[in-house]
Amino acid sequence: MTHAFKTLDVLLNPQSIAVVGASSNPLKIGGRPIAYMKKLGYAGQIYPINPKADMVQGLQAYPSLSAIGAPVDLAIVAAAAASVEDILRDGIAAGVKAFVVFSSGFGEYSADGAAIQARLRQMCEAAGALLLGPNCLGAINIRNHVIASFTTAMEDHALIEGGFGFVSQSGALGAYWLDMVFQRGIGVSSWIATGNEAGITVSDAIHHLAHDPDTRVIGCYIEDIKDGPAFRDAALTAIAAGKPVLLIKSGRSQTGAAAAASHTGALAGEDARYQALFDQIGIVRVNSLSDMMSVARLILLQPPASGPNVGVISVSGGAGVMLADELDEAGFAVPPFDAETQARINDALPGFVSANNPLDVTGSVAGDSGIFGRVLDALGNAPDHDSFVLFIGLMVSISKDLSESLVRAFANRGKQVAVVWIGAPAQVVRELEAHGLPVFPDIPEAVHAMKIARQIGAARDKAHRLRGTQWSAPLPAPTTLEARAEVRAQDFIRAQSSLAFPDQVLIQTPDQAAAALTALTPPLAVKLQSPDMLHKSEHGGVKLGLEDADTLKRTVQDMLDIANTGALRLDGILLQEMSPIAQELIVGFKRDAVFGPLLLIGRGGVEVELRPDSAMAYLPLTPDAVLDLLRGLTTAPLFDGYRGGPKGDLSGLAQALADLGNAFAADPTIEEIEINPLALTRDGRFVALDALSLHRAAADPG
Amino acid sequence: MTHAFKTLDVLLNPQSIAVVGASSNPLKIGGRPIAYMKKLGYAGQIYPINPKADMVQGLQAYPSLSAIGAPVDLAIVAAAAASVEDILRDGIAAGVKAFVVFSSGFGEYSADGAAIQARLRQMCEAAGALLLGPNCLGAINIRNHVIASFTTAMEDHALIEGGFGFVSQSGALGAYWLDMVFQRGIGVSSWIATGNEAGITVSDAIHHLAHDPDTRVIGCYIEDIKDGPAFRDAALTAIAAGKPVLLIKSGRSQTGAAAAASHTGALAGEDARYQALFDQIGIVRVNSLSDMMSVARLILLQPPASGPNVGVISVSGGAGVMLADELDEAGFAVPPFDAETQARINDALPGFVSANNPLDVTGSVAGDSGIFGRVLDALGNAPDHDSFVLFIGLMVSISKDLSESLVRAFANRGKQVAVVWIGAPAQVVRELEAHGLPVFPDIPEAVHAMKIARQIGAARDKAHRLRGTQWSAPLPAPTTLEARAEVRAQDFIRAQSSLAFPDQVLIQTPDQAAAALTALTPPLAVKLQSPDMLHKSEHGGVKLGLEDADTLKRTVQDMLDIANTGALRLDGILLQEMSPIAQELIVGFKRDAVFGPLLLIGRGGVEVELRPDSAMAYLPLTPDAVLDLLRGLTTAPLFDGYRGGPKGDLSGLAQALADLGNAFAADPTIEEIEINPLALTRDGRFVALDALSLHRAAADPG
Repeated sequence: MTHAFKTLDVLLNPQSIAVVGASSNPLKIGGRPIAYMKKLGYAGQIYPINPKADMVQGLQAYPSLSAIGAPVDLAIVAAAAASVEDILRDGIAAGVKAFVVFSSGFGEYSADGAAIQARLRQMCEAAGALLLGPNCLGAINIRNHVIASFTTAMEDHALIEGGFGFVSQSGALGAYWLDMVFQRGIGVSSWIATGNEAGITVSDAIHHLAHDPDTRVIGCYIEDIKDGPAFRDAALTAIAAGKPVLLIKSGRSQTGAAAAASHTGALAGEDARYQALFDQIGIVRVNSLSDMMSVARLILLQPPASGPNVGVISVSGGAGVMLADELDEAGFAVPPFDAETQARINDALPGFVSANNPLDVTGSVAGDSGIFGRVLDALGNAPDHDSFVLFIGLMVSISKDLSESLVRAFANRGKQVAVVWIGAPAQVVRELEAHGLPVFPDIPEAVHAMKIARQIGAARDKAHRLRGTQWSAPLPAPTTLEARAEVRAQDFIRAQSSLAFPDQVLIQTPDQAAAALTALTPPLAVKLQSPDMLHKSEHGGVKLGLEDADTLKRTVQDMLDIANTGALRLDGILLQEMSPIAQELIVGFKRDAVFGPLLLIGRGGVEVELRPDSAMAYLPLTPDAVLDLLRGLTTAPLFDGYRGGPKGDLSGLAQALADLGNAFAADPTIEEIEINPLALTRDGRFVALDALSLHRAAADPG
Repeated sequence: MTHAFKTLDVLLNPQSIAVVGASSNPLKIGGRPIAYMKKLGYAGQIYPINPKADMVQGLQAYPSLSAIGAPVDLAIVAAAAASVEDILRDGIAAGVKAFVVFSSGFGEYSADGAAIQARLRQMCEAAGALLLGPNCLGAINIRNHVIASFTTAMEDHALIEGGFGFVSQSGALGAYWLDMVFQRGIGVSSWIATGNEAGITVSDAIHHLAHDPDTRVIGCYIEDIKDGPAFRDAALTAIAAGKPVLLIKSGRSQTGAAAAASHTGALAGEDARYQALFDQIGIVRVNSLSDMMSVARLILLQPPASGPNVGVISVSGGAGVMLADELDEAGFAVPPFDAETQARINDALPGFVSANNPLDVTGSVAGDSGIFGRVLDALGNAPDHDSFVLFIGLMVSISKDLSESLVRAFANRGKQVAVVWIGAPAQVVRELEAHGLPVFPDIPEAVHAMKIARQIGAARDKAHRLRGTQWSAPLPAPTTLEARAEVRAQDFIRAQSSLAFPDQVLIQTPDQAAAALTALTPPLAVKLQSPDMLHKSEHGGVKLGLEDADTLKRTVQDMLDIANTGALRLDGILLQEMSPIAQELIVGFKRDAVFGPLLLIGRGGVEVELRPDSAMAYLPLTPDAVLDLLRGLTTAPLFDGYRGGPKGDLSGLAQALADLGNAFAADPTIEEIEINPLALTRDGRFVALDALSLHRAAADPG
């Protein structure tokens, strides 16, 4: 699928920039971009627009965009909301190709503001001009010194060009990000804060960075995505191109979501919808900017590890143990070194140190750069280990020697290396990182970054496979829905999949019950079938374990009475054979208005709320993808012959659910299917013991 | 219980200090303590001991401790291992009251070294002298400038006097701790690195800090505790005195434990034994030094929150949502402000801001110190909120005004306040913290510190209650053990508790089976009873669901044949009534050689390994404490009538397990009791469906 993403080149690589509302005061919103760009040496033309001034910050000023009389690629608008519409109209007439609107007072403020914002959007779309904002902090391209932003975050830092790009729906978070990267010495490519997203969305910006040769890692802050398919496509493009997407999505708790709603004016969606998308396409979610920094530091400097085996080298035994603890919890292994490497280490080391992993070289060895260098050289070749972590604490007086040993042994070995150095001198950190060795201030940051980096390696391969997917499109929310009871919901499921149901007979009268008893093997379940009674158990619509004809007839009559009394529409009374249940699943197919139709699989039964265990993914899904979802449940072994229990045919189930899901996705008249429980019987069969479906009229426009 | 803790006053408040192996080079091990103490102005006498020098660093030197001819409180020994025994002998003869031995080459190195170490210990014990080390980094008292340590960690920092004390089994971790506290501007009381612990242990040091008026929070790094009861007593003393113990215990993973074993020479215990102790007595475990710093920063400056309700004030909507997310996950609530507070906020704020929680004051309001100050004043009185978090990002140019507003509104209000300030100027951080407002560099650190601080408040009350406990003492490991099969293990359980068992008959012959059938209601369980067959199911020793006399007799005969064939000692064949099982527990009573007898409770059944859910605590336990353990299980509701399931008498069960546990603890001949499963039947009774016990001879010395 290819979306009509906006091409942001003229925004981030403009040959000329006008600033409407230009100020001579470099600390004002309309003065700061000019001041930044002059200081950094932006190579294109800068045109201050200010009808009250001839010169602004030493540059010739113009009364309006159209008065410039020369081509303008980008116009930055720092003017009162009321004047923005006229400014854009003038700019479009003058051929301006892109606008960055700092001004607030639009959709985020009032209905009137939203109406103006809609007109700005239409105007730019009609003219083929880009629009970033309104109510945004702007955009930055570090390499060519385009600072179309009034952020204060860069005032106290030297800017560093590099491979980290960032996209944010919040200007404030964007500013904090800038402060953090430069404070930590991480290099930046481009930075885009989308504000109200009247034109350019986060999806457009991610798509741009995915193709931007200067960008190698993409950071992202989002609150609410409205263009789900475009977002998925943009992120997949980036990830498949080997550019990890590290993302913060706020509103992950109920509390937070409520706050987000009041903040953005958009109801922040149920977080699980987002998490399912991130998991499916390989977006890496982090929970704070500092966490994002740790991960970026590692993956900007180091290749992904090809496996879980880590060699740990520490100048302190205690710290080595703490590293091993943290690595173990993050899913890494710390296996012994191979015999040859051990021999090399022993050759290099004095007698009182043993060649274990973690390798405690002791402070005295680390202090002898000759010995320590030989030990590090020996380790750098360890064939069984996929990455290394080196722990150093203090040792300030010999830090230069130490860092040279590290660089010689580990820089450019093709294996992932992280350095934890408590109390490292700033100069040494800079030197190590200049040689590609990332330095972390304590153990957890380093190990967490390594853990995330492993996910990233797997995500890239998966994204390549997923890129050809013809995703099922989202539908607008339905206006009316009609329910179908179990026996009618089964029709679609039977037609579209090989899912099994109990042997059953649908009857209309008590007399038919006796005949059914000859066709079915008791004990039987008796279920009232009405679209007006979907939760049957609570209303006397289900009786279990019936064996004899008299009781059965009486039960059927009772249910008919219930239907009569309630004036329920009636499909009949369903009699089903019962099988002893070993385990239960819940399966649901739903439609998300932003991201499209999805499959939900979870463990059922009494514990479902106490210890939830479920997974979601968007359709279509291959049988293998469904099998991965099933096997990803914590309790998956219970369905697979665990400790003598029944072993279900998980592959067959995955095939059936994939078939059903794809048929569901393709039929816009079906809004939802729920199968609950989908039981694993004691004799190892998966059987759908109850189902319902919700339907909309074929012509429902949503 | 009161242990004979060592009194460390003479170590940390000596009037005179000798340094054996004193060096004129202030960077050498024997020179650094003298240089530090001279620079800081230690007020007592310093006596360098160096037979080759008359003067050392400007002080008169002596050839030996006995040559000083004046009282020496503390002797620091920085000499070769081979000479240490003679030095201590000389020092003891001269009346030295405490020794700090830096030298290594003792128990950590060789059997010979261990033998010398044992003699050092005996010598000091006999003389009533304190011994810290050997192989240790020493001890520090910041207030009186006693630096009996050669750590380099203080060379680059200004020392700050304060309330944070630290005890470490690792010198390296101790040094990193010093670097971190001073780098972060946190004030320190005393610091003790125990090394090989021939004399002073971590327990002694914690006990000292518990009574030290300068210490308000105790940090601790341990690898292996040998004096379990003393450690528990010391920690409880500290916690009950309102001094939280923040502890790192390395070796929490299997990998880490293996590494710890090679590091300390002591087998690092199964981590759960430690965690159970920490949970029971309220020690707060952290996983890194930086985490310990975050927590200490908060609790040194702020009172504990009296409840879970947090008010969030943020200059960025997005950051406010992220804070709400993080607080929610940490178990806090972010409820709306009361009507009166909302009215006050609305009075203070311009119209476009709403008085929600999180309160997004927006950057423009925060920039107006008048408005922002009134908003903060309004919030400081919010009666429903127990603590506040303020989020600020950048705003460097107005940071002085901002910090003054914060101090005026929140300092000394008696409510907990934390400030998150991304990109805060160092000077502002210092000013806020000088006024008692802790500043965190990002959101997760602040919220995690708040979460831990809540645990601390509860721990203090609990420690007060626990201080009177007469803990059951640990026993040495047994030399031989004798098992008892179910029916004999029941004897002790029945005698000591009200636990229920199935109706049962013990028979010896197949003929007795028929008679038993008249006394019991089938279906029956048939179980071979032999101390030589403890895992009966796997060896044909258990048959379930028997109903008729013939099958029963045949089954009994089969089991007798099995016993005969295997030459098993036989207690008989146990016939038991069966009840439908709803849920299963596992209960164990064991003895830990370091911390004493304990109770383990966990959910049983097929999922026990897939999703473990268990808890441990040391004996004796009150019925309430056992009930807390039971209710603390994630799956506890399943035993308490959850969703229509059976409701067991949890209080009765807790009483029975407390009785049994205390009887177990009091009888040193019983090594272990296991009840598995302890079933909750479908009709709501707890029944012990199987049991075994292990016994040692009464005279077993271990």
